Amino acid sequence: MNPTAILLLHCPDTTGIISEITRFITDNGGNIVDIDQFVDHIEGMFFMRIEWELDHFAIERDKIAEILDTLYAKRFNAKCNLYFSDIPPRMAIFVSKMGHCLYDLLARYQSGEWRVEIPCIISNHEDMRHVAEQFSIPYYVFPIEKDKSNVAQVEAAELELLRRERISFIVLARYMQIITDGLIAAYPNRIINIHHSFLPAFVGAKPYHQAWTRGVKIIGATSHYVTAELDAGPIIEQDVVRITHRDTPQSLVKKGRDLEKIVLARAVTQHIERRILTYDNKTVILN
Amino acid sequence: MNPTAILLLHCPDTTGIISEITRFITDNGGNIVDIDQFVDHIEGMFFMRIEWELDHFAIERDKIAEILDTLYAKRFNAKCNLYFSDIPPRMAIFVSKMGHCLYDLLARYQSGEWRVEIPCIISNHEDMRHVAEQFSIPYYVFPIEKDKSNVAQVEAAELELLRRERISFIVLARYMQIITDGLIAAYPNRIINIHHSFLPAFVGAKPYHQAWTRGVKIIGATSHYVTAELDAGPIIEQDVVRITHRDTPQSLVKKGRDLEKIVLARAVTQHIERRILTYDNKTVILN
Amino acid sequence: MNPTAILLLHCPDTTGIISEITRFITDNGGNIVDIDQFVDHIEGMFFMRIEWELDHFAIERDKIAEILDTLYAKRFNAKCNLYFSDIPPRMAIFVSKMGHCLYDLLARYQSGEWRVEIPCIISNHEDMRHVAEQFSIPYYVFPIEKDKSNVAQVEAAELELLRRERISFIVLARYMQIITDGLIAAYPNRIINIHHSFLPAFVGAKPYHQAWTRGVKIIGATSHYVTAELDAGPIIEQDVVRITHRDTPQSLVKKGRDLEKIVLARAVTQHIERRILTYDNKTVILN
Amino acid sequence: MNPTAILLLHCPDTTGIISEITRFITDNGGNIVDIDQFVDHIEGMFFMRIEWELDHFAIERDKIAEILDTLYAKRFNAKCNLYFSDIPPRMAIFVSKMGHCLYDLLARYQSGEWRVEIPCIISNHEDMRHVAEQFSIPYYVFPIEKDKSNVAQVEAAELELLRRERISFIVLARYMQIITDGLIAAYPNRIINIHHSFLPAFVGAKPYHQAWTRGVKIIGATSHYVTAELDAGPIIEQDVVRITHRDTPQSLVKKGRDLEKIVLARAVTQHIERRILTYDNKTVILN
Repeated sequence: MNPTAILLLHCPDTTGIISEITRFITDNGGNIVDIDQFVDHIEGMFFMRIEWELDHFAIERDKIAEILDTLYAKRFNAKCNLYFSDIPPRMAIFVSKMGHCLYDLLARYQSGEWRVEIPCIISNHEDMRHVAEQFSIPYYVFPIEKDKSNVAQVEAAELELLRRERISFIVLARYMQIITDGLIAAYPNRIINIHHSFLPAFVGAKPYHQAWTRGVKIIGATSHYVTAELDAGPIIEQDVVRITHRDTPQSLVKKGRDLEKIVLARAVTQHIERRILTYDNKTVILN
Repeated sequence: MNPTAILLLHCPDTTGIISEITRFITDNGGNIVDIDQFVDHIEGMFFMRIEWELDHFAIERDKIAEILDTLYAKRFNAKCNLYFSDIPPRMAIFVSKMGHCLYDLLARYQSGEWRVEIPCIISNHEDMRHVAEQFSIPYYVFPIEKDKSNVAQVEAAELELLRRERISFIVLARYMQIITDGLIAAYPNRIINIHHSFLPAFVGAKPYHQAWTRGVKIIGATSHYVTAELDAGPIIEQDVVRITHRDTPQSLVKKGRDLEKIVLARAVTQHIERRILTYDNKTVILN
Repeated sequence: MNPTAILLLHCPDTTGIISEITRFITDNGGNIVDIDQFVDHIEGMFFMRIEWELDHFAIERDKIAEILDTLYAKRFNAKCNLYFSDIPPRMAIFVSKMGHCLYDLLARYQSGEWRVEIPCIISNHEDMRHVAEQFSIPYYVFPIEKDKSNVAQVEAAELELLRRERISFIVLARYMQIITDGLIAAYPNRIINIHHSFLPAFVGAKPYHQAWTRGVKIIGATSHYVTAELDAGPIIEQDVVRITHRDTPQSLVKKGRDLEKIVLARAVTQHIERRILTYDNKTVILN
Repeated sequence: MNPTAILLLHCPDTTGIISEITRFITDNGGNIVDIDQFVDHIEGMFFMRIEWELDHFAIERDKIAEILDTLYAKRFNAKCNLYFSDIPPRMAIFVSKMGHCLYDLLARYQSGEWRVEIPCIISNHEDMRHVAEQFSIPYYVFPIEKDKSNVAQVEAAELELLRRERISFIVLARYMQIITDGLIAAYPNRIINIHHSFLPAFVGAKPYHQAWTRGVKIIGATSHYVTAELDAGPIIEQDVVRITHRDTPQSLVKKGRDLEKIVLARAVTQHIERRILTYDNKTVILN
């Protein structure tokens, strides 16, 4: 597969953006392999994802971003992000005591399903160390005191590790600690969480128990980017499974596990493939 | 099809109930065509639906309820409801200005999909009169004053009409008025509403707009029995449909319409077929 | 809503098409409200749907098609279809004895859900005349002899009626007769059928019975354009519903009805909104 | 959790079976925790799954089967299977070169999701040995010659291994060899396969490619028991995922992987929990 450049762009809607950008790429010998765009007429915003082959592209890689900025970003008041398909993102996994999402992520990684690197797994417990070792990935434990007195130090140590490993995004694979503001600020819209309910129903703790108590006929799972407000960040993916009166809180936990795995994996896939733009606490996911 | 008797029963869980009841029916010449049961081990409750052919059943129809009561209801502290398949329930439809659920209910009714009678449609507006007339069903309008000053009189008039027509249950086909306590008390767990969200998410007004604002990736609809608390009664049926960032509040309304129709129709089907027991603000739906 | 022009175009893939067309529209004062495109890299084909407002568009309506043809169709070897949003398509419904899809289509039509006109309903039986009359739509019966001896005359009479009513596309709402080659030739990719199975499983007669015999756990429905080969035309939409061992051929028919209605309605919506391109016996459905 | 006995029974339908069996269990001090039954009125067959606690049950474990046989099996011409919840089944996995189902099964096994033992993994290739080793499960390779000349010897060796390991059922985790008649005869309705299509559509090789060529809008996966006829055994579970014109055979393979994992895992769960009866090439799955 030829290496490609991927541009994610959004700006106030105006005429002519698509034709300008596609002409720029085409005129410089780039073969466009994918283009998807979306106009939010309510917010008056334009979103685009465009991917083109670099093989015969006349502009050198390290100049592209600068030229795009000069030619278009300023003119259209656009926010641009440029990626290259052969530079995979580096992903850190945070986990606590439940292994199902972790196993699923690592099996996908090891079998080559994703173009990603996973240099480290971070936890507040030792429980999942054997899984990390099975997959030969370094496992770091940062225990958090019950009184939360060491949260600031833990955050500092984690940030230091993440920087050292040049981590580009974080996946919370059922990590049961509140993510600190410093971490969120360092990785804005780059921390993916899986919440075990169909948000915004059943925010917070024990959502399966809440669902059982309310007597719903369908349960869900939601992956979203982490923001300062609990379970309220931009939603990336949701899915549901039908339940009946026969289900107990325990059987919901069991059914939910499969849902959590698949919903988290889909969100991670979209993120790795650079398909997600965020705006106004929502996601726009382009082909 | 032979006429059948249908018994819905629930009581505190104990041993031997199934074998007692099935033996009673079998010993009296009843051929059981369906039996489904459920034990809620958390609440310690037993639920059963049993349906048997009346053809060679030794006990006369009008004695069955009394005998069941004498033999089992008291002994097991059970709540029993007995129905006969050839005595269809009588259903009233309440509607306001939106016709999609109304059309769907009436088309099912007219094409013989349900064993039900629909002697009247009640509204607070004239808008849907032409639909009622198309299907030759009497249409009654009880306008409600903007200041709600006549709510008590309207309720009284409606109750009078419902009694006169011997209505056994009510379907709110997107009826946009709060149901009064008197009506709820007269029809406990016998008023079926369709709410256009995946409850408990987006209770109250404008749920599609709420869903769009939150940026969910799936929307839903919920049919439930009406209780005093708004949108909080026992859930009968839910379903969902996937949406994307391309959807607007308007397109959600459009997509939601099909969902509302199907979810409401499924709930009405279960109710007509006497499959729903309610307990602890939940439904148990037996085969 | 301002009237818009909608262009559906497909041609062998080459560079520059999008930028050419979007520039043409923009340069002539057209405000693009929707654009979606797709490249089939396997077949080497490019597909595009583009919709723009006509209000300030410099080119007169009746000149647009010609200019597009001159400028682009020949140059790119493209097949173009141009539509105007304020000229609704005219749809004929064919029906036999089952009314559920017919009711659903007519209720959507009457409640203004679609920008379409329905000047006639055609049948081989009298059974659904009362439904047509309920909705005040002319109903024409063309009985077909058991020995099929009058098929040619019926086709001729139907074609004459369809021409007289300027019908642009046909919907087979569970029409239980083979569509003749002459009709297919007159309406290529413009006859929408609903088949009551998840094609290509269970082609032909009695698919629910076939599904029950095979013991599947999910049944489906498929809407497709009619071609000469039975149930083998381009698929527009499919959906499924879960079943269990408890289902009988009869209950599958019942569950399938709701599926057929929704799958057919979705296909008709896409067709009315001019979102479907066909190529190589498949559909490309653009936003 | 108390150990339970699970009885799966089917026989020609007659009156009184449920009451007889439940009375037998109750009279002997057994507490019934689950009962589900089903009457196939078309075939005239009765199916039942009943589970009861052994703690205060008056009859010794090793006598139960015999007594059931004496009292009921002969009388009702019933086929009975008795299991004990604390004697987990022993499962062999067959795999070829694709690891996604294998990883999923082993992760569930290792994290204690199932009451099962997995004493061996069997393959015709070395490729998945590292996964087996990661999870510390013995891995046996039986290479099959291209000309299939050694199939009989391989079958014999496999049967010998399966017997030695007291394997009760086999899971084919995308095993790409035809299962031999001898193996099928030794494990009737105890070999679970995952086929990567929505059967009966796309039987045989390359189903994703077949699906792409046909232009379907939904793809599926099917788990079934293996019988002599290819992909035609009793279906246990199916599920589907929506696709679009944008999908290629490669992306279908990718989307299908998640479907295969989940559909296979659900079938294995039902089998392990002894919920599946087979009759007339179909499955009856009881709660």
